[in-house]
Order: sequence, then C-alpha cells, then structure tokens
Amino acid sequence: MSCPMRNSDFSAKSGSDANRNGMLYGEYLVLDKLLSAQRMLSTEHDRPVHDEHLFIITHQAYELWFKQIIYELDSIRQLFDSEMIEESRTLDILKRLNRIVLILKLLVDQVPILETMTPLDFMDFRNYLSTASGFQSLQFRMIENKLGIKPEHRIKYNKTMTETVGADPKILEQLEISLKDPSLSDLVQNWLERTPGLEADGFNFWEKFRKSVEQVLDDQETEAKEEPDEDFRNYRLMDILKRREVYLSIFDQNVHDALVSRGERRFTYKALQGAIMITLYRDEPRFSQPHQILTLLMDIDSFITKWRYNHVIMVQRMIGSQQLGTGGSSGYQYLKSTLSDRYKVFLDLFNLSTFLIPRESIPPLTKHMQNKLNIGDQNSTNGSA
Amino acid sequence: MSCPMRNSDFSAKSGSDANRNGMLYGEYLVLDKLLSAQRMLSTEHDRPVHDEHLFIITHQAYELWFKQIIYELDSIRQLFDSEMIEESRTLDILKRLNRIVLILKLLVDQVPILETMTPLDFMDFRNYLSTASGFQSLQFRMIENKLGIKPEHRIKYNKTMTETVGADPKILEQLEISLKDPSLSDLVQNWLERTPGLEADGFNFWEKFRKSVEQVLDDQETEAKEEPDEDFRNYRLMDILKRREVYLSIFDQNVHDALVSRGERRFTYKALQGAIMITLYRDEPRFSQPHQILTLLMDIDSFITKWRYNHVIMVQRMIGSQQLGTGGSSGYQYLKSTLSDRYKVFLDLFNLSTFLIPRESIPPLTKHMQNKLNIGDQNSTNGSA
Amino acid sequence: MSCPMRNSDFSAKSGSDANRNGMLYGEYLVLDKLLSAQRMLSTEHDRPVHDEHLFIITHQAYELWFKQIIYELDSIRQLFDSEMIEESRTLDILKRLNRIVLILKLLVDQVPILETMTPLDFMDFRNYLSTASGFQSLQFRMIENKLGIKPEHRIKYNKTMTETVGADPKILEQLEISLKDPSLSDLVQNWLERTPGLEADGFNFWEKFRKSVEQVLDDQETEAKEEPDEDFRNYRLMDILKRREVYLSIFDQNVHDALVSRGERRFTYKALQGAIMITLYRDEPRFSQPHQILTLLMDIDSFITKWRYNHVIMVQRMIGSQQLGTGGSSGYQYLKSTLSDRYKVFLDLFNLSTFLIPRESIPPLTKHMQNKLNIGDQNSTNGSA
Amino acid sequence: MSCPMRNSDFSAKSGSDANRNGMLYGEYLVLDKLLSAQRMLSTEHDRPVHDEHLFIITHQAYELWFKQIIYELDSIRQLFDSEMIEESRTLDILKRLNRIVLILKLLVDQVPILETMTPLDFMDFRNYLSTASGFQSLQFRMIENKLGIKPEHRIKYNKTMTETVGADPKILEQLEISLKDPSLSDLVQNWLERTPGLEADGFNFWEKFRKSVEQVLDDQETEAKEEPDEDFRNYRLMDILKRREVYLSIFDQNVHDALVSRGERRFTYKALQGAIMITLYRDEPRFSQPHQILTLLMDIDSFITKWRYNHVIMVQRMIGSQQLGTGGSSGYQYLKSTLSDRYKVFLDLFNLSTFLIPRESIPPLTKHMQNKLNIGDQNSTNGSA
Repeated sequence: MSCPMRNSDFSAKSGSDANRNGMLYGEYLVLDKLLSAQRMLSTEHDRPVHDEHLFIITHQAYELWFKQIIYELDSIRQLFDSEMIEESRTLDILKRLNRIVLILKLLVDQVPILETMTPLDFMDFRNYLSTASGFQSLQFRMIENKLGIKPEHRIKYNKTMTETVGADPKILEQLEISLKDPSLSDLVQNWLERTPGLEADGFNFWEKFRKSVEQVLDDQETEAKEEPDEDFRNYRLMDILKRREVYLSIFDQNVHDALVSRGERRFTYKALQGAIMITLYRDEPRFSQPHQILTLLMDIDSFITKWRYNHVIMVQRMIGSQQLGTGGSSGYQYLKSTLSDRYKVFLDLFNLSTFLIPRESIPPLTKHMQNKLNIGDQNSTNGSA
Repeated sequence: MSCPMRNSDFSAKSGSDANRNGMLYGEYLVLDKLLSAQRMLSTEHDRPVHDEHLFIITHQAYELWFKQIIYELDSIRQLFDSEMIEESRTLDILKRLNRIVLILKLLVDQVPILETMTPLDFMDFRNYLSTASGFQSLQFRMIENKLGIKPEHRIKYNKTMTETVGADPKILEQLEISLKDPSLSDLVQNWLERTPGLEADGFNFWEKFRKSVEQVLDDQETEAKEEPDEDFRNYRLMDILKRREVYLSIFDQNVHDALVSRGERRFTYKALQGAIMITLYRDEPRFSQPHQILTLLMDIDSFITKWRYNHVIMVQRMIGSQQLGTGGSSGYQYLKSTLSDRYKVFLDLFNLSTFLIPRESIPPLTKHMQNKLNIGDQNSTNGSA
Repeated sequence: MSCPMRNSDFSAKSGSDANRNGMLYGEYLVLDKLLSAQRMLSTEHDRPVHDEHLFIITHQAYELWFKQIIYELDSIRQLFDSEMIEESRTLDILKRLNRIVLILKLLVDQVPILETMTPLDFMDFRNYLSTASGFQSLQFRMIENKLGIKPEHRIKYNKTMTETVGADPKILEQLEISLKDPSLSDLVQNWLERTPGLEADGFNFWEKFRKSVEQVLDDQETEAKEEPDEDFRNYRLMDILKRREVYLSIFDQNVHDALVSRGERRFTYKALQGAIMITLYRDEPRFSQPHQILTLLMDIDSFITKWRYNHVIMVQRMIGSQQLGTGGSSGYQYLKSTLSDRYKVFLDLFNLSTFLIPRESIPPLTKHMQNKLNIGDQNSTNGSA
Repeated sequence: MSCPMRNSDFSAKSGSDANRNGMLYGEYLVLDKLLSAQRMLSTEHDRPVHDEHLFIITHQAYELWFKQIIYELDSIRQLFDSEMIEESRTLDILKRLNRIVLILKLLVDQVPILETMTPLDFMDFRNYLSTASGFQSLQFRMIENKLGIKPEHRIKYNKTMTETVGADPKILEQLEISLKDPSLSDLVQNWLERTPGLEADGFNFWEKFRKSVEQVLDDQETEAKEEPDEDFRNYRLMDILKRREVYLSIFDQNVHDALVSRGERRFTYKALQGAIMITLYRDEPRFSQPHQILTLLMDIDSFITKWRYNHVIMVQRMIGSQQLGTGGSSGYQYLKSTLSDRYKVFLDLFNLSTFLIPRESIPPLTKHMQNKLNIGDQNSTNGSA
C-alpha cells in the first residue's frame, strides 16, 4: 500500500520540515498504541480461543468509527447553533451528515464479519467478561443522546448506567453533558421553526395549506357522494372521514400536543410546519439543500435502525432467545424492543408523507415568496455572463 | 410482498376508475411477457444445463437497468441542452445523475451472482450461442455513445458492429443517432464554458489563476534556493521545474491542444477553465450544485470502470486467458484494454487535482463576483423571519 | 460490453451451427419482448411522470430475480426429496442455497434505488393503479409458500387473494400447488430426522445430550450454593432454575408440542434433535456440509426479513403512517407486522444457541460413530497417496 | 448498543469471578489507548483542518483490519504446514479464508468514506506528513509477503523500505521474516502437489488428461476439415492449431518452466496438475472443500486487486495524475502499475479455465479412485442409519 497521496505538488512548500523531518506513517497513526491494544482474555486464562481476536478487532473498529461520528455530530451541532446559517455552512452540514450516513452504512456491512464467529466459539470466551458490563458502549450511548433520544423514550432495562460503563466520574460527566446540551434534534427543530414563509403576517403557509387540504377533501366528498354503488360509496365516505381525522393531528394543536406527550410525535408544532413546507416546495432553489438535509436525517435514523436490526439477528443466532417460559425479558428481547419507532429521533419526518397533497393542490407561491426562495440576481446557474 | 404503497390517501380521488377498474400489479408490469422471455437453449437442444437460467436472468436484469440508464441519460441531456438552466432543473439533473450512479453500483454488486456459475457449467451451454455475437449489448454501446465515448478512442476489435448486433437496420440507425446527437460530455462542456467568472472582460478568472500559480511557484523557488543541503536543494528545484512544465499543459493552449489530439485530454480549453473554477470556489452557494454535478460525473466513470473491472476478473475465471504464445488478442485481453483511461469520458475531471493550489493562494472574489455567486437577497437559508 | 465469454476454446466444436448460425445476443435474451414491456400509465393518461419508469423497471427486476429464486428453490426441493442424498448432491444444494442468498442480498441493495423517487412524485401516478391489487406479487407469495410459511402463521389482511392477484384460474391453481407440495421446510425436517446418531438403539444422541445438560446444571447449582453473598447466591440459583425450565422445552415433548401448536416452534421433535446434533458436532467431516446448509437456511430467513425491513422503511417514507386515530390497520402497520418472528420459517435454527453447552461438556463420540462421520479410508484430504 | 451477548446461559459457570469481577467492556477493549491515539497534526500546527480526523480514523481502521488479516493468515499457514491435513482442519482453513475475504470486501467498501474528503481539504494538511514515508503500511506489505508476492515480481519504486517504514530494526526484522517464512502460496503448492490421483504409478491423472485433450482436438480437426466453406475451414483449423500451442504450455514442462521464469506463471508443474485435477473432479466429495479453498484463494486476489483499484481511482481524484511531460513516474502511475497481473499471487488459478475440457471428455475415475474420493462407509450424508 504505497500510497502516493503524500509525495506531491506543494509538499515542498513548507520546506525541509515537511519533507525531511515530516512524520512517518506509523508514527502519525500512533500504530504502536493502536496495534498493542488487543488483549485476549482467553490467552490470559491459558485457554486461547482463536476467534476472540476477531471479536476484539470488530468492536474496536466500531469504537473508532463511533468516535468519528461523534466528531462530525459535534461539528454539525455547532454549525446549526446560530440564528443565521450561511449557505456555505449548509453545504458543510450536508457533507458531514452524508459522511455519517456512509459510516453507518459501513457499520451495517461490518456485521456479517462478526457472524463468522459461531455460538460455540463465542461460548468459549464470553465467561471472562463482566455480566454487569453487557457490552455497553459509552460512545454509542453518547451518539444516541447527541442525536436526541430522550431518556423517557428509552425502554427500561434492568441495568443502571453505572453498572454498564463503570463508575468513572469523568465518563459519567461526559454522559451527563451529552444529555444536557442541545441535541441535533433540538437544533434542527429551531432551524425548521425559522423556515421562511411560516410567518403569520407574511406568506402564512400554514393557513394556506390548511385551506388546500380542506378543498381537496371536500372535492373528494362531493365526488364520492355521486358514486352509484352504495357499498363502495359508503366505503369512500368512511375513508374521507378517516382522513379528516388524520389531518386534525396537524391542524389542531391540542391533538398534536397530545401525540407529543404520548411520545408518538416529537417535533414542536412550528418545526413540523417548517418540515412540511420544505417538503412541498423542495424544488425551489433555496429549499433544495434544506430538503437534502431532511433526507439525510432520515437516512441516519434508517441506518441506525438497520444496524440495530442486523445486530439483533446476529445476537439471536449467537445466544438464542430464552423467552420460553422465563417471564423475564432476555437480552434478545430487550434488543428487539429498541427496533421500535420510539428510538427514531426523526420519526416525524418519516411520517410526513401522510400529509402530502397532490402537486396541483399545493398553494402557489406569491411573487414575493418566489423571489425569496430563488437564487440571486438571475435564475440560472451557468447562464450567460 | 403485499406492498401497501398503493392503497392510501388520495387514491380515492379519481374515483371508481382508480379504485375498482385500476390496473392489477401483474398486468401493469406486463409480467406475462416478462416472465415468458426466458428461453433455455440447452433445454431446446435436449441437454438441459441448470445454470443457463441464471445466465439468462442476470443478463436480462442488466438489460432492464441499461434501459433505465438510457432513459435517465436522455432526460439529463435534454435538461442540459439549453442556454439557461434554471436552478430547479439543476436539482433534477443532480437527482437523475445520482440515480444512474446508484444503478451502476447495483450492476457492480450483481457480478458475484453470475460468478456462482462455474467454468465447467458455462462450457456446457455456451456452444449454442453465436460466436459472432460475442454478447454484444446494443444498449451498453448506446450508453457509452451517449456519455461521449468517441469511436476514435475505442480500442479496435476484430468484430464489426453488424456482426455483433446483427443487421437490423432499425437498430443500426439507433446506434448511428446515439453517435451523432450531442453527448452528455458535449453538453457538459458547453455548460462549463458558460461558467460565470470566466469572461475576459469581467472577473477574468483564468488570468488571475495563472498569476496565483506563478506566485506560488516563484515563492517555492525562492525558498528552495535557500536550502543549505545541496542535494536536497537540487531535488527541490528540479521538482519545481517539473511542476512549471505540468502547468504549461493548461496555460499554454498549444500544449492543451496537443494533448487533446493525442487523446490524453478531452475537454475544450474553456470548459477545462470552468471546471477548475467551480472546483476552487465550490463553497460559494451558486457553485455548490455544479460541483456536485462534477462529482457525480466522475462517479459514473468510476462505476462503469469498476463494473468493467469486475467483469474482466469474472471472465478471466470463466474462460481463462489464452494469451500464451498465440499472438492474437483474446477476449480477456480485449476486455482488459477497456479498463484504460481511454474509456473515461470525464478523464479531465479526475486530473483536476493536479492543478489545485493551496486555499490561501486562491484568487479572492471581487464584491461583484461574490454577489453573483450568492443566494438571493439575503445570505442565509433559514435566517430571521 | 463486448463480452468475450463466448468466442473461445471449444466453441468451434459443434461446427458451423454454433459458429455461424448460433444465436445473436439480443435474440437469445428475447430483448424485443423484454424491452417493450414497460408501459407508463401516466403517459397513457397524458400526464407523464418521469419517475414512473423507475418504478416499473425496479419492480420488473424484482420479478426477474423472484423467478430465478423459484427456479433454484424448486431444484433444491427436488434434490432434498429422496431418502438418500449423495454427497455431490449436497454440494449442489449448498451452491444453490448460496445463490439464493446472494440474490436476496441484491434485492436488499436494490431498495435505495427506488427510494430516489420522492413521495410527491409517487403520488403523481399511483392513482392509476388498482387499490385492490395492492402490488401483490404472486411470485413472492409463491416463494413464501415454497419455503414453508403456513397460512395459519400469516397475519390476516383485509384483502382476499383473488382481489390481489386477480381471478385467473391458472394462477390460483399455481398458488394452490405451492401450498400443497412439500415445502423446503418440510423436506429439511425429513432430512434432519434422518441424522445419523439419533437412533435410540445406536449412538442415542438425545439421551446422552440430556444427561450432559443435567450434569452441567447440577455442577453449577453445587457451585452456586457455595457463593457466600446471599443476594448473589439467590440470583444465581434463580438463574439456574430458569435455565432448567428452558431446557424442559426440548426435553419434555409435551412442552415442545405445546410450543409448536402456539406457533412459537416449527420443527418436529426429531428434526430439532438432528439440528442440535449437527450444530454440536459440526467439526466432524460428514456434518460440515449439513452445518453449512443450516447456516444458509438462516441466511435466507435473515435476508428476507432484512428485505421486508428495508421495504417497510421505504414505504413509511413514501406514504407515511396513518395509524393516528384511525383504528384500522394501515398498509404500513400491516407490513411492519410481517417483520415478526412468525414469518421466519427456520426460526428454530435461530434459537438453537439457547440450548448449546460448553465444548468440554459435549458427549464424546464413540469409535463407531467417529468412523461413521469421517471421510473414507483415511482421514486426510491431500495426505500421502 | 446494549449488547446482551454476554449476560446469559453459562456465564454464571465460573462463578463470582466472571460475574462480578469480570472485565468491563471499555477496559476489555483498551478504549483509553485506542481512543486517545488520534493526533491531528493540523491542530498541532495551529491550523486545524476538520477532515484530518477522518483521514486518521480511516487509516487506523485499515490497520486494525490488517492486523486481523495477518492473524488469520498466520493461523492458516500453520494449518497448511503439515504433511497430513485432517478434514476438520480443512474446515477451519475454509472458514478463516472466508473471513479474510469478508474483511477485504469491507476494506473495499470503506474507500467511498475517505472519498468524501476533497482534494482541497487534503492539500490543507498533507504538508505535515513526511514525503519519505509515502504512507507505507508495514502491515500491508507483510500481508503481501505472507501471501507470497515475491520481491522480483514487484515493480521497482524509487523508495527504499527503510525510507518508508523507518529504520526501526525490530520492524525490519519482522519484514525479513515475512519474506523468509514459507508463504501461503508456497504451502498451498505443497498441498496441491499431494493431490491424490497424481501418482504416476497410480491413477496417473496427468497422462489420462493429456490423452483426453488430444482426442478432443483431433476430433475437432477432423470435423473442421469437412467444413465446406474454405475461409471458415481455414479459420477453424488455425484456431485448433493455436489451441494446441496453448496446451503445450502445460504439457511440455520446458514451456511451463520458461513461463515461470518470465513471471507469467507461478505454480510448480506438479501443483498446477493438482489444481487442474481438483477443478475437473470438484463434484467428488473429497474434492469439494479443496475446490472451495481454491475459489477463496482467487477471491482474496480479486478483492485485493479491487481494493487497489478503488484506491487508485481515489488517489487520482485526490492528487491528480502528473504524468504530463515529466518523464518520471508519479505516485498515481506507480499505484496503477500494481494492478497488473504481476501482483496476483494465485494468477494460475484464474487461468485454469483456459485448459478445461467439456464434461463428457473428462477421464472417468477408476473404481479405486472413486472410493478414495468418497465419504466413509456409505455415500449419503443423512441416509438411513
């Protein structure tokens, strides 16, 4: 792997320092530390198990990538954390969210490697590990917290955090901070609430949207009433009734708030409006990157759930499922429960499609609004000079 | 696979037609035609070979996806084919290029499935196929033409097109057209030539860039001359000399033209300038999507070459390599030759990095230019209301 | 894609027929039928929607691969369907199961391509499709049936089969047959029941295994009773008690049968014994391929569930989730329910790990049994002649 | 990531030690060392570059996996290194080769993550690295050596090993050993030479195979001579002549040896015979696993080349290609050269298909040979007891 990415162009620039005294690859990557951090307990117990090495390397690779995810998450949260977000900053947010998605995809792809370890092999060394620990990754917990999973949405498990990550006060403090600081979800909601066009004294999108929806439903009702077949007519009218009820959940703030308090919805009322507006007008230049951001946020949720899912299947293969007759919830059962929608931070984005209306019924933009959402002094990228 | 993507929301809208007389899944997908198009020659010859079925299905799946790629390519070429490209059109171009990239990635992932057929199995039925045909996919050839692979860059092979796709005049005409119509590469170049900022009487990027490069190289030379160690000093001075020569290839149009005529460069002189400008200022709002487009164009080239590469390895496994002593070029040798840079339509984009300069030496934008590259009447997406 | 896989070696063998009159690529793949089977309803309704083309191609590619899966499944079922399975047949079973796994993996990878279609685009043409159909793929249903999903394990849905696949009697008959014929699961169970070593008057594995488990549990109990800390002692004793209860589910046939009738277990009592035996002695030569088969059967279940999972997430993005207040189960909810363990045909294999015991407690093979499970007249592959 | 893979079943076995004093997850993975080994040079130089972190983590992840590959390679080489290889050992070889393949596949998948770093970002920090080092990974070099890449097949590069990995004598010694110890390729060849059936005084496969090939070619010649069309007749006769020449390369040891000395073939004459024999009779029980091993060896070569290939494309994007006019070979050119067949350790396996003959011409096994290649005292896996 002689990688020439180094020896080129402007490397000579900073002079002798860079070229002759520059750092060697192995030194730069601190390989002496990295490659001496594999400690086989089975060997230490004089009953070496070949596959323990794979178990260690796989989990260490996970932890390295978790660190990178946290690094990107922190920078994204910082970029979001201001009243005004410059366009070029939006691009950085996009690029870093996309990088997180790619990393999560890799973590999913990594699961089959660990699956080459069979249950009997695993049984040979898992004894040496602490029951209490239960392989709790502090970093993964911090990723969840920084994304915005709230303690109240977590499924209760019979271990306390101290039991799983140990009692190191520095670590417990880090965890504490990751819970207190505004999460990505909080910051995204603030940003969505500022979506241009939501102003009640301006374009007043929400009011316009509500009227459009009513119009669509009324038209459908009129049409349905003319259906000659009675059964089918009733079916259609019932269907429209149900849909009115569904829309209440976004047009009646009381219903919305009730859903939030039940944990079935997450976003603030205003943030939800912003998200719907961006989705409907995503073809407008200024909403193009915000729409890409919303898509990437869903991707993050999707890949984390896919990772959990692949993990659950692997665990079932590895330790089975002891639900039979025990009453108590086993590890497999616990893990399975984390697949529920409760662990989706951006759940509301996934459900947006419920509220979409056909393109021709979307409220048209005003001239003023159109300008606001357009690009600069001309409406072409590479137009004439 | 009961997919509920249909029975929902506004489906009732168009009334009884949509709901009761709407088309059934199987009818819609024309499954009777699709699923009766697998014709096993080995069975027809009364020597059935199990694996021929896989061979047919795999190649048919390729052809379906090729059709989708052509469909997207045609629409992208149409979107590019105008003097002014609206922002929302740029977004469509982006989305469709990205879709092509995802499809190409799938085609690469599909290769291992065909690899489960072993050479002995394959030998059992390949006799029934025409030598002349050599599995020439008309659609793949059309994709190459529409992307912009020119006949003069192709490696000569001992088959004529008539031998490989047959003599059907309709098909030959389609091929003809795919060569005559402006290719994606042609249209991208036209678009790059219009990059705002290239105007000689305006921002005049090229002149500014040339000066910056000279400054960087002069500074390096001055510094290098002060290097006390004679050997290292000479090494550095030599290196700078070489770099000056490299830059000549973009600053001296004669050198550029010579490279083009030798097939080592593809873009027009002006298009190359546009591409370099977009790469350097890609953080400016108006260059963000154009930069993404350049990246996707490279992705297309990359994945096609990866596909060719995986294909070559599979063919080597399947039929071996008969180069030994024969002198003549075998199929494996021919395929291998298509991996060369000659088949990269957007080769010049891959080589752009050769000409980059450090961020601090990039010519600063003028106030006028900054406005031109910015978004609308404010410089924030979700700024204040 | 000039693929040279054809023009080589022994192609000349069958003479002029093969070489000059052999079939052309396009003719062989019946491309005229295949590439004319894309029918855009939105175009027929004079409101063309660009993305409908992708929707069609994606689903057609699914159907092509479904056909290949059915083709392989049928051949595997035939190979399994005999009292004596020759070794070389086992290898064919292995290879074809592995091929199915690779295809299923591709189907999972294919989901992100369809996700590039956005909900608004989709809304533009889904009206033209029949509600009744609900995109029911007949072939996917047949795959499920042939694998061994029983009607009684399916979650009830409000559509009849006639509504979803139409009333074509030929199709309904095919479905009927796929339910009546012995499924892969049935045949695998027959095969497992014949596992050498299960004979009560021979090695009598089950009795030996039962004793080993008891010994392990007794030893643990003895050790636990000596634990000085009372709380921990009680915790450990309780744990052992629970484990005894878990083992009852395999050692007491009444408990087993109760689980089967509740749908929580699938295999016959004897087949389960065979599966456990193969898992424990998988390092013995003759159990090596059977163990690989068990692993591939789980892979099939895993990938089908992963495919369902990715599909659910896509559907949620595309049409949202209308559970709010409606009471009725929406399509999303229905699809989500198919993720449950009820749809895992080889569920029992996933749970085997529950019953494993440490390597040192596994009953040793008798001399006779060892010979039976070994390879031929010598115990080395490439030993001396 | 509360992974329950630990707290279960027999964990209580080793008593209080395992359960209460067992090791915590973070301590076990030595996370304090692992997660403090990221040293950002750009930060140390007070010009922090966000993307340097990704660069470090990516390369560290590569190094962790390289360590795992070396660990598996060493164990495989040990398993191969004996006169008699027991069946159960063959299975371990298979499993570990397969694990290496999966890891290599992951390394290929990892490339796109690093590609999210753009050339300008990279230029911002690559100055701080040593030119001399050229990102030479010692571990990757060791993998190449242990696989069996010989120094004489390497393309010369202008750096000495001391310049790239530093002058640490311990490291240089490790490298030395990796070159001296028998490589995987050496051991595989020894094993192939022992293939049962090659004995001249026994089955004498090679002589039988030579005769079959001659028969096939003679038959073809007779048939070709009857071809009425003169041009086509001559074409076919020429083709048969060429094929005779190709076969000389395996039947005339002098030609074979000449190819070996030119680096176009790698295996010993006898090992090549073993490989061809296993390929032709791979359906025989005892050759089934050896054939899988040959396939996995090719997979390793394929994925390493794919990894190199993806790497080359990334490097071209990142630093361009400065071949223009410089005369000297640039890093990109060097890397590209490593894609040649010279770096394929198991090149001969890829070319085996060149020498295959139709199934019906394969020499039939003798009764004695059939028994030798069969499984135990019966020819069924799960036959009757």
